[in-house]
Amino acid sequence: MTRAQTDVEQVELANTAFYEALERGDFDGVSDLWLDAADLADAATYSETPETGGPGTVREGGLPEIDLDDPADPGSTGGPEPASEGPAISCVHPGWPVLTGRGEVLRSYALIMANTEYIQFFLTDLRVCVAGDTALVTCTENILSGGPAPQDGDELGPLVGQLVVATNVFRRTPDGWKLWSHHASPVLAETGDDEDEEPSS
Amino acid sequence: MTRAQTDVEQVELANTAFYEALERGDFDGVSDLWLDAADLADAATYSETPETGGPGTVREGGLPEIDLDDPADPGSTGGPEPASEGPAISCVHPGWPVLTGRGEVLRSYALIMANTEYIQFFLTDLRVCVAGDTALVTCTENILSGGPAPQDGDELGPLVGQLVVATNVFRRTPDGWKLWSHHASPVLAETGDDEDEEPSS
Repeated sequence: MTRAQTDVEQVELANTAFYEALERGDFDGVSDLWLDAADLADAATYSETPETGGPGTVREGGLPEIDLDDPADPGSTGGPEPASEGPAISCVHPGWPVLTGRGEVLRSYALIMANTEYIQFFLTDLRVCVAGDTALVTCTENILSGGPAPQDGDELGPLVGQLVVATNVFRRTPDGWKLWSHHASPVLAETGDDEDEEPSS
Repeated sequence: MTRAQTDVEQVELANTAFYEALERGDFDGVSDLWLDAADLADAATYSETPETGGPGTVREGGLPEIDLDDPADPGSTGGPEPASEGPAISCVHPGWPVLTGRGEVLRSYALIMANTEYIQFFLTDLRVCVAGDTALVTCTENILSGGPAPQDGDELGPLVGQLVVATNVFRRTPDGWKLWSHHASPVLAETGDDEDEEPSS
């Protein structure tokens, strides 16, 4: 087996581990699969809006904050980050704005886990491409999820199906492949019959 | 100026050039900014659904095909690609499924340009992170666009505003930084006032 084949398999395993950790509601597991500051120590970053990227803030509205006490989270310590704050992970949940840095990203997962009783991902259309120390994964996330029961009962809330596509970028680290970026978005046009659909961009 | 600073600036220029080419409806300009097969010759790829990734096909419904005669497009020549078809670019337009390979991706831009009389991108929240030969760019695309006039007149169709976030992945090549992946998605929850929003994934 060549190194290239092994890389592709390792990336696929890391991608699977990420979704399995989400299914288990395993916050530490999800956290471990994202790059930390040390992993990106040699990277260079530019941010147009450094003053709003500090810990404890969410740059764009829509996400209630969570008091997440995670001492291992470099985003949760220190004051506002300078312009050359060091490289950062980024994450886009379906319909959400961009979240940047471990503070924002991990808080969003804590929020989602707190509001999700059940979630299952059926991954299809998986593609993995490894170039050097970076890997690009695209897949379709066929999601079945349920929130808390409406009346504090023991039962699940109604199950909802979602069709989402994701682009996941991984970096090679001494501890294996870790997520640098996750971008997931809803698939809104599916039929294939409607030639009048004209999404832009 | 350090090499790292130069890299970040070069990536930002490539990112700007991409959106300016889209604004001009410059198909060749957009095409030149995407990686081609030679750029990713050393990469390793795995595809779960190789039989549907061949040229001239769109794996998932929703996109009418365009007869795009582009001899420089490696995706437009030859038969169905084998499982180890070589690495590929990928692209997700807002609300669309994943498009893979230069054939699918460039056809989608030809389709969009054919249906767009006017488009302008106001980029905000730009972040650039360079690690080795890969760069990750996130930005908000504030889009103003218009389709063809409804009655074949000289005027534009109605202008539409869209709030979209994008994750763009670039690779370093001898000809500069080129796009490996573009993932754009609509921002659906903006108000920041509604604590009942519970996006999943």
